[in-house]
Amino acid sequence: MDLLTIKDPKFLKNMSINELNALSHDIRQFLIEKLSKTGGHIGPNLGVVELTIALHKEFDSPKDKFLWDVGHQSYVHKILTGRACDFDTLRQFKGLCGFPKRNESEHDVWETGHSSTSLSAAMGMAVARDIKGTNEFVVPIIGDGALTGGMALEALNHIGHERKDMIVILNDNEMSIAPNVGALHNVLARLRTAGKYNWVKDELELLLKKIPAVGGKLAATAERVKDSLKYLLVSGVFFEELGFTYLGPIDGHNFEDLFETLQYAKKTKGPVLVHVITKKGKGYHPAETDKIGTWHGTGPYKIETGDFVKPVNAPPAWSAVISETVRKIARKDNRIVAITPAMPVGSKLEGFAKEFPERMYDVGIAEQHATTMAAGLATQNMKPFLAIYSTFLQRAYDQVVHDVCRQNLNVFFGIDRSGLVGADGETHQGIYDIAFLRHIPNMVIMMPKDENEGQHMVNTAINYDNGPIALRYARGNGLGVEMEEELKLIPIGSWEILKPGTDAVILTFGTTIPMALEAAERLEQLDISVRVVNARFIKPLDNDMMHQILGTNLPVLTIEEAVLQGGFGSAVLEFAHDHGYQHSIIDRMGIPDEFIEHGNPNELLKEIGMTTEDVIERIHKLTPRKQKRV
Amino acid sequence: MDLLTIKDPKFLKNMSINELNALSHDIRQFLIEKLSKTGGHIGPNLGVVELTIALHKEFDSPKDKFLWDVGHQSYVHKILTGRACDFDTLRQFKGLCGFPKRNESEHDVWETGHSSTSLSAAMGMAVARDIKGTNEFVVPIIGDGALTGGMALEALNHIGHERKDMIVILNDNEMSIAPNVGALHNVLARLRTAGKYNWVKDELELLLKKIPAVGGKLAATAERVKDSLKYLLVSGVFFEELGFTYLGPIDGHNFEDLFETLQYAKKTKGPVLVHVITKKGKGYHPAETDKIGTWHGTGPYKIETGDFVKPVNAPPAWSAVISETVRKIARKDNRIVAITPAMPVGSKLEGFAKEFPERMYDVGIAEQHATTMAAGLATQNMKPFLAIYSTFLQRAYDQVVHDVCRQNLNVFFGIDRSGLVGADGETHQGIYDIAFLRHIPNMVIMMPKDENEGQHMVNTAINYDNGPIALRYARGNGLGVEMEEELKLIPIGSWEILKPGTDAVILTFGTTIPMALEAAERLEQLDISVRVVNARFIKPLDNDMMHQILGTNLPVLTIEEAVLQGGFGSAVLEFAHDHGYQHSIIDRMGIPDEFIEHGNPNELLKEIGMTTEDVIERIHKLTPRKQKRV
Repeated sequence: MDLLTIKDPKFLKNMSINELNALSHDIRQFLIEKLSKTGGHIGPNLGVVELTIALHKEFDSPKDKFLWDVGHQSYVHKILTGRACDFDTLRQFKGLCGFPKRNESEHDVWETGHSSTSLSAAMGMAVARDIKGTNEFVVPIIGDGALTGGMALEALNHIGHERKDMIVILNDNEMSIAPNVGALHNVLARLRTAGKYNWVKDELELLLKKIPAVGGKLAATAERVKDSLKYLLVSGVFFEELGFTYLGPIDGHNFEDLFETLQYAKKTKGPVLVHVITKKGKGYHPAETDKIGTWHGTGPYKIETGDFVKPVNAPPAWSAVISETVRKIARKDNRIVAITPAMPVGSKLEGFAKEFPERMYDVGIAEQHATTMAAGLATQNMKPFLAIYSTFLQRAYDQVVHDVCRQNLNVFFGIDRSGLVGADGETHQGIYDIAFLRHIPNMVIMMPKDENEGQHMVNTAINYDNGPIALRYARGNGLGVEMEEELKLIPIGSWEILKPGTDAVILTFGTTIPMALEAAERLEQLDISVRVVNARFIKPLDNDMMHQILGTNLPVLTIEEAVLQGGFGSAVLEFAHDHGYQHSIIDRMGIPDEFIEHGNPNELLKEIGMTTEDVIERIHKLTPRKQKRV
Repeated sequence: MDLLTIKDPKFLKNMSINELNALSHDIRQFLIEKLSKTGGHIGPNLGVVELTIALHKEFDSPKDKFLWDVGHQSYVHKILTGRACDFDTLRQFKGLCGFPKRNESEHDVWETGHSSTSLSAAMGMAVARDIKGTNEFVVPIIGDGALTGGMALEALNHIGHERKDMIVILNDNEMSIAPNVGALHNVLARLRTAGKYNWVKDELELLLKKIPAVGGKLAATAERVKDSLKYLLVSGVFFEELGFTYLGPIDGHNFEDLFETLQYAKKTKGPVLVHVITKKGKGYHPAETDKIGTWHGTGPYKIETGDFVKPVNAPPAWSAVISETVRKIARKDNRIVAITPAMPVGSKLEGFAKEFPERMYDVGIAEQHATTMAAGLATQNMKPFLAIYSTFLQRAYDQVVHDVCRQNLNVFFGIDRSGLVGADGETHQGIYDIAFLRHIPNMVIMMPKDENEGQHMVNTAINYDNGPIALRYARGNGLGVEMEEELKLIPIGSWEILKPGTDAVILTFGTTIPMALEAAERLEQLDISVRVVNARFIKPLDNDMMHQILGTNLPVLTIEEAVLQGGFGSAVLEFAHDHGYQHSIIDRMGIPDEFIEHGNPNELLKEIGMTTEDVIERIHKLTPRKQKRV
């Protein structure tokens, strides 16, 4: 059928299984074709086509509430709720969001992006329903990977206790982003291979009837065996222990099984967990056969071959530069242990993992545990390298404060995807880390101007033994500069002057340095001489250079691809006022106090007012006398 | 024995059970007597006397590593490691810390205060041990309450998966701070009442031998029953599913049981969970019979009666003022739902719970879940009141950013224990919340000058429907002011002038207002006229008043009982520079960039340089001409 004609999911109600299978095929073709141009989370969405259709057929959205955990698997839901026509703009500036978005549709009742939030939100919705006395179904859909996140486990525990009516769909695709980690995964694997619960239950009842009558203790035990059938090996013993009715596992690509089980779930009181087995990437061979998560989320690709459309001769990815330098140093330094919370591919730690399997830990989606495990390692004089996306480090703020910084432990944070991240958008912007780390005592924060400085910063971090140190780096690729052979140490808190200048000073770091240099060059032609400083240490500041700059009363512009409030520019203001430079002219450029949606970082920076032209304009305002002369 | 003579735990090795029982008695008497004067966590420590002795007898600390989760139960450990003589200074300024502290003893290998960190740290230590090839035991001791924290569950999952050698002591006292919450608690309860695992296992083997031989499917099933004995009702099925060898439950006050089980655990490969049942408050009647957690942590008390030594006629506690006002409004406003992460007593929500049981949720130690559950409620037009200690809100930073603020949901955060908290010290100071909340878009933050304004702020928060709003309040009691009958609305972002003045302006809020007023009065006598402003909205600032103040070029002193970096004072600096008041004289007083240990808040403020005298001195410096005239 023509998916573009879909307005809402009501049309599903009268479709036959054959028609639904045909629809599934059409949706898969649509996704494969559309995402080949835009990129996106192809694997997860191909896996949930039948499941999403079944949910929309059995339930009544938006009255019934679907909560898509993580949310990157919501494309089919978006198609069925009238948004097929927007897929050409997927994950692009002002285009269709790659995650559920409440302002896109009344069917998106809960926004996600980060993992493991759906169960808690569903609990809130279930409580609200019961207070109001309404009767809608609350249906969180959560993957087996997201289930390892601590907050999902907190929620399971609470939901099981309160026994609120709720239908949790466990979408078990055997692989979250990277292959899953954790004992919970083993539990699921046992369930997955065990066959159907009810079958074994029947067998056992038959068996027990054949036990000869015996007296006393033994009979009592036999009774207990009978009572406890549900705890037997093939049951969802883990979830039942937590208070859920466990249904499954069922084939998530079989409509009969899905309907039967969902209908049963709807009739069951209390929390139900429906264990659905799906195949990530189903229906598209390259994605279906992916073993390491390459097809979880992709850029554009050629449909026929599955080859990715990649820029030729691109400079190395930032994460590769950092992780490979850690690997190189690890050859000589046995203290180094790398930790990733479920992002071995994204953080480019595959090489390290291959070379040092006993010093590499992928802990699953578990940022809190990852951070405090690193702290534990550091107490034993090891040197943990925690590679973690900026946006996911938010999950471990307390662990950074309470466990790492308070004990002043030598944890090396590799803060990946710092700054604007582009297509993933609002939920994933790495723009808060400076503001949430800078006020923590003992923390050192740095960001390199290019990948050569990046490798020296890795070396600096590993050789720093005075406490925690964080190295921020951007999503995407470096600048393609030459890499020095010998690794250096960069003095902590030392900045460098990239371009001299006598009329004004720009203090900036990382990704915004090229823009600052370009602006300074263009201003030079207008006879305005701007000094550009690589403020590579965000904390501590370079005190000597700060005194030098403020002591000569030069106007200062700070630039950061991070939130302004409490950020680097604020640190500069604080320094000026703490040291009596009350008359300093300091202007700050950065991300304003609002959430920033998806889009190409350059488009976003333009929208925010962070372009070369904006820098030039700001410098003009800071140097009014110069401007008049010109 | 004389506990003051203990230097290290080696003396335990040769003691008989009778001697150990006598020692346990002596330790209990010591704790009951010492804590009656200093206050402290009496209940948890009386519960772990035998357990701690048994651990120190069976293991070799500090070679073997004890990690005390939360850490308030480490007093016995402190006595056994040579610190009995310091108990007169317990939790006092420069005195013995109430939690493990690495600079106090080599036996304190991991510092705690917040809950649920021990398993992750233990994993780090176990990994370090195995890389180094040493053979020490790693022994985290965690309560049943702490186990509901998400990060502990993340760690259990990972430890079970990796199967590292580790002996987890589950100290199950049936009550963490408040009575436990959650399905996990039910699991533990079942284990607790089920008797010994091995007994049932033997019975079942006997039973299965009697099953007549049957062919085909049925025989296969019988085999599976046999294989799966360990999953049966009375086993530690939950933990075994996660990959642990489960031992217990055993009586935590019986040395024979403890020694036998610990010895068995030491011989067991892989992760072991020893389930120990203890009685909180054991040996002191008032604490032993406590049902709601009153004797978890206390101030001084009379030993004979168990009466608390309390100041007479103290003003109402801040938490009581806030929670009771919420309760009052809840009588008319059905949207209000109160949520607490395991602190119904501390947050004074007992009254609310009694009156509105269906609108009160104690979710256990689960701050992440609590926050996102509140967000879920808010999506359904409910008005969640999340009462949470400032220091514990750190655990939910990402949930505040990603779930609440990003979706701009009407969650009312009651941030309890804001500012310096006193005896709990470093791990519990509520001094980061302004810095970690202020940079999040959509967030409103306020703090009242007294409890009357506090009740109006509660009313304001509940009637605010434009997004999240946070109300900070201090630990301890209000000022004893008169409470107005009618609740008012305070315009968002409005400050008030408490005292006029023409030479300088103090901007401050909450607990530091009395100090500012006192300083201003004393300066008045020196002919320096200081305006004191109740800057009750920390975000947004009162823009009109800011323009008025900065426009007249008055020097400004900001005062906050919170970290300086990125705090309220920085917001004032940002405003000044963003609005072109480049020549403003702004000085900031607050908590410097270092961790602040335990002690009476007044002592701590003096140490930091935040006294009335300091304020006077700072104002003098800001008004040099006035000073000369005087």
